[in-house]
Amino acid sequence: MNYQAILEEIYKEIKPELKRGKVADYIPALARVKKEQFAMSITLLDGTNYSVGNFDTKFSIQSITKVFTFSMALKIYKDNLYKRVGVEPSGNPFNSLVQLEYENGIPRNPFINAGALVVTDSLVSFYQDEFKALEKIMHFVREITQNSAIEFNQEVAKSEWEHGDRNLALAHLMKSFGNFENSVEGVVKTYFKQCAIEMTTKELSRSGLYLANKGVDPISQKEFLSASQAKRVNAVMLTCGHYDASGEFAYHVGLPGKSGVGGGILAIVPNVMSIAVFAPALNKYGNSHAGTLALEKFTSKTGLSIF
Amino acid sequence: MNYQAILEEIYKEIKPELKRGKVADYIPALARVKKEQFAMSITLLDGTNYSVGNFDTKFSIQSITKVFTFSMALKIYKDNLYKRVGVEPSGNPFNSLVQLEYENGIPRNPFINAGALVVTDSLVSFYQDEFKALEKIMHFVREITQNSAIEFNQEVAKSEWEHGDRNLALAHLMKSFGNFENSVEGVVKTYFKQCAIEMTTKELSRSGLYLANKGVDPISQKEFLSASQAKRVNAVMLTCGHYDASGEFAYHVGLPGKSGVGGGILAIVPNVMSIAVFAPALNKYGNSHAGTLALEKFTSKTGLSIF
Amino acid sequence: MNYQAILEEIYKEIKPELKRGKVADYIPALARVKKEQFAMSITLLDGTNYSVGNFDTKFSIQSITKVFTFSMALKIYKDNLYKRVGVEPSGNPFNSLVQLEYENGIPRNPFINAGALVVTDSLVSFYQDEFKALEKIMHFVREITQNSAIEFNQEVAKSEWEHGDRNLALAHLMKSFGNFENSVEGVVKTYFKQCAIEMTTKELSRSGLYLANKGVDPISQKEFLSASQAKRVNAVMLTCGHYDASGEFAYHVGLPGKSGVGGGILAIVPNVMSIAVFAPALNKYGNSHAGTLALEKFTSKTGLSIF
Amino acid sequence: MNYQAILEEIYKEIKPELKRGKVADYIPALARVKKEQFAMSITLLDGTNYSVGNFDTKFSIQSITKVFTFSMALKIYKDNLYKRVGVEPSGNPFNSLVQLEYENGIPRNPFINAGALVVTDSLVSFYQDEFKALEKIMHFVREITQNSAIEFNQEVAKSEWEHGDRNLALAHLMKSFGNFENSVEGVVKTYFKQCAIEMTTKELSRSGLYLANKGVDPISQKEFLSASQAKRVNAVMLTCGHYDASGEFAYHVGLPGKSGVGGGILAIVPNVMSIAVFAPALNKYGNSHAGTLALEKFTSKTGLSIF
Repeated sequence: MNYQAILEEIYKEIKPELKRGKVADYIPALARVKKEQFAMSITLLDGTNYSVGNFDTKFSIQSITKVFTFSMALKIYKDNLYKRVGVEPSGNPFNSLVQLEYENGIPRNPFINAGALVVTDSLVSFYQDEFKALEKIMHFVREITQNSAIEFNQEVAKSEWEHGDRNLALAHLMKSFGNFENSVEGVVKTYFKQCAIEMTTKELSRSGLYLANKGVDPISQKEFLSASQAKRVNAVMLTCGHYDASGEFAYHVGLPGKSGVGGGILAIVPNVMSIAVFAPALNKYGNSHAGTLALEKFTSKTGLSIF
Repeated sequence: MNYQAILEEIYKEIKPELKRGKVADYIPALARVKKEQFAMSITLLDGTNYSVGNFDTKFSIQSITKVFTFSMALKIYKDNLYKRVGVEPSGNPFNSLVQLEYENGIPRNPFINAGALVVTDSLVSFYQDEFKALEKIMHFVREITQNSAIEFNQEVAKSEWEHGDRNLALAHLMKSFGNFENSVEGVVKTYFKQCAIEMTTKELSRSGLYLANKGVDPISQKEFLSASQAKRVNAVMLTCGHYDASGEFAYHVGLPGKSGVGGGILAIVPNVMSIAVFAPALNKYGNSHAGTLALEKFTSKTGLSIF
Repeated sequence: MNYQAILEEIYKEIKPELKRGKVADYIPALARVKKEQFAMSITLLDGTNYSVGNFDTKFSIQSITKVFTFSMALKIYKDNLYKRVGVEPSGNPFNSLVQLEYENGIPRNPFINAGALVVTDSLVSFYQDEFKALEKIMHFVREITQNSAIEFNQEVAKSEWEHGDRNLALAHLMKSFGNFENSVEGVVKTYFKQCAIEMTTKELSRSGLYLANKGVDPISQKEFLSASQAKRVNAVMLTCGHYDASGEFAYHVGLPGKSGVGGGILAIVPNVMSIAVFAPALNKYGNSHAGTLALEKFTSKTGLSIF
Repeated sequence: MNYQAILEEIYKEIKPELKRGKVADYIPALARVKKEQFAMSITLLDGTNYSVGNFDTKFSIQSITKVFTFSMALKIYKDNLYKRVGVEPSGNPFNSLVQLEYENGIPRNPFINAGALVVTDSLVSFYQDEFKALEKIMHFVREITQNSAIEFNQEVAKSEWEHGDRNLALAHLMKSFGNFENSVEGVVKTYFKQCAIEMTTKELSRSGLYLANKGVDPISQKEFLSASQAKRVNAVMLTCGHYDASGEFAYHVGLPGKSGVGGGILAIVPNVMSIAVFAPALNKYGNSHAGTLALEKFTSKTGLSIF
């Protein structure tokens, strides 16, 4: 298939949509991101990359990092992880406390905020220290991208912390149920740093190869997950990757995917490729408006849905 | 692959599990089903069938019919159907009224009871009459199975009606929100008849071929859905097919599937096959305990997960 | 105290408020009630009545009848009634299904619709027949008003039935939990007839004397409740009489009271008097806007709050 | 009435009940309180005190202090306070986050934890400093008891803080909605100190005289609230003073009251007296089991219900 031509076609078609939606504005560093940007990259299992738009622009990947920390924790804790976090779609917004209270502090899945906080908490426990955990997270991200220059944005992390009351509420609530092991402040700060990691779509599409290839990076041959674990991460991305629009995403796009409030989406075509898209204006569910459409166009044009 | 050998292996492995779980007992006709039964069938796109166990035993397919009525309504109403029913996982039990009330009578998806009732109501509207609608549903089911002998069980339908208060509550609640067009009694009775359809696993696995083959029955060449619609039915089966254990099913099995309280499950391997399993004892979510395990074993042994 | 002067003062002050709010419009018979009406009556324990405004105009007392059927059921079943209905404020609108589902079909209190339906169901059970039960309800209401001419409005009852889906949903939901003993249709129709009873404020204020006088009508000397039961009905009126504005009513008015969607309110000053007010335009909670204000003015001017 | 004889009768009758229920055990300092204690005191408007049992034993008054801080904030902010906290019963446990999330961070009433935290936050804002606010709270409590020796227990406050995650969650959640003005840590610590205030029943019954006497202490003649405000505090005590057993309390006791998890209850007979009871074993709603019964007996024996 001529992927480059397809990406360019999508870019052209998507342009009028870039005006729609709203850039995340709960912190200044995200609020000032220019709205009408678009980038899309795909990386095949052999490493070939195709890209269009602002594919060299760094953006805040935010919740997409939840896929990476979930992978790390799943590798470490295996099925024991499910004592602390489930794999069910929540049917509620990403930061809701309601279900958490009804379900005794066990988050529905690792991709809602509560679940991601528990996952980060489990990494802090394993590495015994929040700074060590952060270092390991950065190391993991640099390994899957094969890029030692990946960093997080200090200003974004700081700004998240200053507006972090809801995440603090989630963490304290879980702690009150006994499902939080370390200092709330330490874990939440680590979580905000993790969310502040920046990549280009080119880098982000590279990062998902291990998920497209049964847990093993097809270039470096490093095994990040077992085949069965990789399959399961993909399943959770499909059912839970877009908060309470996960069903819509599965329905329209038909690929495992994870969105971030920075406007990025990572999507996986098992055994074929990893895709990254960036368009900062969000729809009402907090997912990239044009990014979701671009992926829908991509699977329509290529037939690369999993269904 | 030697599918017959795999099925027999699974059957052997699953036997100790048949003791576990509980047969549905809310109506006498289901309560008296013998617990330790098991059957599994697969039908390939070319029509080849492999089966083990009680594969000639009829059972009540119950909620699995929601896949068929959803297909019919999607064909008729296309995207207009989504004004009346969504495609999001609900995160709640199959018969919950909570979300329905918060969301003004629009059910989350067509596979929870409220959604299926709306779908049946939409068919009654389209065919102008509950008896005509039922006739069309039976016709559809006979066509996709290529079996004119498929019937529903009158006693089961009657018994459901006698215990139908929760479904009546759902229908009246939706009617109070203006999302119900016909007589509550008529539609609910039609729905119970549809749920009382009986098949063997051999027949049921035959019924899913159109979903495994982009909407077109690969043997009869009849088109039941467009390729895009078939893909979408599969997506909804994956995200919503097992109520509040849909995430678990996607995670462990990795296939679009729909369970019924009679102990059946229909699962689809896109472009490859349709699978049916029957084991009447249910887990705490109301899905077949051994059936779910058998499917998990099947995708582990064959690698036929979509992820 | 010069009650007549106080009532006239209130009437004068309240006039500008009669424009505000909205007459109930879910059924035609209520929707066409003229908005800018007002009437207020008080009846002292010795039977003396003071009235202002349209105090000879009949109006639909609607939910106020819940006080009377609750009284009847409490007399019959005593504390056994609490197996079927609680006495806690619900914190939710009058017709919500949410709590009912979480709490297994046991309504929070007898003044939300679900609770009132259970109460009517219990009367149908006791009198063995819905028509006999209705006759007894009418008899009770005629006795407490000492007025054999009290009737219900057939057209209103019929119209309620035609728009009765939410109440049918509540009844079927309770039946599915085993908390409903008779035919849903029969009980709901009886309930709608009970709600369609019509009174003037003069009659309605007379009806509450047994609650102001420890369960015994001070004129006829008939005992409708024990002293302790009367005290308890008053307590439930105070905590639950105005749906999710019950706290506001207690806070601003400070009397046991029960509102109806027809614009009436019955309030009790224990050991002193019974008050009725009528003003059909409702506030956002479904309680009479001007009626609530008039009662607030009354307790401010007279100091007759219970607090 | 021979109040002393009545108290002694109650004490005798209540003794077998002291075995029932469970002392609060979420912090060590409360967990080690001896279970089978009982004390009851009444103080008439002229200051006359009657007491039985361990009426000179100090106990942690806990949530009863919410009445005092609510009084202070109502005096300061008047109706503006209702922009930040409502007066409706919540229908949920004292520390639930569910309603808070649905209702955008505005607590239902000042007696659930979220509401009390907002009230304390408003005092910290007014007095510009958490220590100044605490000083003013202590001053208020010493004035209404006319006892400068009232103190809070440092160990209890510290222990609450160590188990304070749920209250921290509530405060952060409200802050995320913009309904929290000061440092979460500072306010929550102040709140825990306020809750750790200790009194005997004799002192506690003295503290409520201003509420029994239209806002003015009948002995010192100091005005703590206007008559109308005092009436309203009583109304909120009646409808919201016992969490999700407030309706039961109104129903069985029929007096404005406020319970604390330390086993105390303060109840008000408007224009007559203030009552305090202490029995540390709690019922399933977190209210003193024997204390509630004792108050029920008291209103039955004396007829002093407000209804």
